[in-house]
Amino acid sequence: MEIGKTQLKTVLERIKPHIHRTPVLTSSLINEIAGTNLYFKCENFQKMGAFKMRGATNAILSLPEEKRSKGVVTHSSGNFAQALSLAAKSLKVPAYIVMPESAPEVKKAAVRTYQGIITECPSTLKDREETAKRIQEETGATFVHPSNDIDVILGQGTAAIELLEDHPELDIIVSPVGGGGLIAGSALAVKHFGNNCICIGGEPLEADDAWRSLKSGKIESNESANTIADGLKTQLGNQNFPIILNHVQEIIRVSEDEIKSALRLIWERMKIIVEPSSAVALAAVIKEKNRFQNKNIGIIISGGNVDLSNLPF
Amino acid sequence: MEIGKTQLKTVLERIKPHIHRTPVLTSSLINEIAGTNLYFKCENFQKMGAFKMRGATNAILSLPEEKRSKGVVTHSSGNFAQALSLAAKSLKVPAYIVMPESAPEVKKAAVRTYQGIITECPSTLKDREETAKRIQEETGATFVHPSNDIDVILGQGTAAIELLEDHPELDIIVSPVGGGGLIAGSALAVKHFGNNCICIGGEPLEADDAWRSLKSGKIESNESANTIADGLKTQLGNQNFPIILNHVQEIIRVSEDEIKSALRLIWERMKIIVEPSSAVALAAVIKEKNRFQNKNIGIIISGGNVDLSNLPF
Repeated sequence: MEIGKTQLKTVLERIKPHIHRTPVLTSSLINEIAGTNLYFKCENFQKMGAFKMRGATNAILSLPEEKRSKGVVTHSSGNFAQALSLAAKSLKVPAYIVMPESAPEVKKAAVRTYQGIITECPSTLKDREETAKRIQEETGATFVHPSNDIDVILGQGTAAIELLEDHPELDIIVSPVGGGGLIAGSALAVKHFGNNCICIGGEPLEADDAWRSLKSGKIESNESANTIADGLKTQLGNQNFPIILNHVQEIIRVSEDEIKSALRLIWERMKIIVEPSSAVALAAVIKEKNRFQNKNIGIIISGGNVDLSNLPF
Repeated sequence: MEIGKTQLKTVLERIKPHIHRTPVLTSSLINEIAGTNLYFKCENFQKMGAFKMRGATNAILSLPEEKRSKGVVTHSSGNFAQALSLAAKSLKVPAYIVMPESAPEVKKAAVRTYQGIITECPSTLKDREETAKRIQEETGATFVHPSNDIDVILGQGTAAIELLEDHPELDIIVSPVGGGGLIAGSALAVKHFGNNCICIGGEPLEADDAWRSLKSGKIESNESANTIADGLKTQLGNQNFPIILNHVQEIIRVSEDEIKSALRLIWERMKIIVEPSSAVALAAVIKEKNRFQNKNIGIIISGGNVDLSNLPF
């Protein structure tokens, strides 16, 4: 099924009352370094600290009333667990979160803060899927995948729609690539709301499954994923991959040093806290700056949830 | 000489083309913790990363043309050295910066970035003053003190004017207290632009010279200043102390743990980078939260220049 502009617009209107319209920041110093005009869409200021709030909210609001009241279930130990918990809390439905026993206590605590109901299980994917399945059967809750779910993808795309509403002059939007939800949604937004705008992805060299997937034409996975951009270790799925294949122009890979250096630039110069995954998009632009001179480029800052006791500086 | 409302307004109009009008941010989570409505005036987003850009710009613009062209001189190893250098650069006049030989290389490099002309000297106050004096004589440059100069004080006060323009409903504005320039300027702004608003200071217990000065009625100094709020170690001066004595309602002292905890709250929840000095104002409100319930409180976030390789987390 092809997604239309009206459908995307409907999603934005639907979630608008429940999310922040995040600001777009600029930095003349970073523009000078990159030789481009950069517009940072700051989802680190989104509720719960990341864009995932958009997709989680849309997934719940897309359910028919009788299903919605029974709640939602997901397996995640990261931002999506928190996002689904907070979105569910705001919409007054239960969120069941399957987490590996081995997940850090701080992540479990964050989910509990948002009143997510945690079920722990062994850390294999099989165990997590079986546990989620059992909860679905017991409670009637609907499973929501963190990135490979069309309503989640459309929700994530609303950040790029807002960015294009504020800056219709953008030539390029760059998004980090992890599980594929954000970049797929952004690519759809660019297609329908951009004016000769293209969508490009940034990905760590150390977890370049999406780059390889675009080359081979099928979903590839990472044998290892030794990157500080811990939100980008996951692989694409069958819902978002076709969108990425059709609508993402290219993926630029960056080294760990390039990510760290871009991260430091954002922290030091813009005075905002962003997660390493967000720095990947800026690192990609700086790496290929010769190609992008004087372009107007939107950067999706994916989030700002970092462990301050464990920084890469 | 008593400062009038017109004079303050003139200062704001004069420096406006040369500074950023910084945003005012809020956090519903921090409001919940403090039980108040907090409005953070984000001078960490000011040019060069701190409010000092305001005072430095006003000091230079206040000079008659024939003096202005000969430039300005100051002794500082901190934010004011950078602020005066950048303001002078923008206004196309030379800035002579006297710095102790022992100052960290990173601070010297920052001044050079803004084209400040550095003269190094031994680190005693006497050496610094004599070196500045010599440069004045040799170049005809005007000495500008980082905090004890009426034009600097009036410039710093413009942050609070803007905050009150955006939020005339404020009951209290809280500013950190270091050398006294920011709080004196803020107090004048509150007096002339506030509606039944009062000005309160926040100060580290470990460098509580201003708190003691308000008690004794004369300028006190710190024997030691073992605080992470390194911008607040300096003492008041004869220009700003009378203003503080007359127009600052009270100073609230906070412990190092209270500063660190407020700092972490701002970083983690607001996703912005602020210096420890800025956290002192929030720490003061949280410490006395029972007195401030449901008040509308403005917090001056003084700046965001921190050494990322040396964080207190």
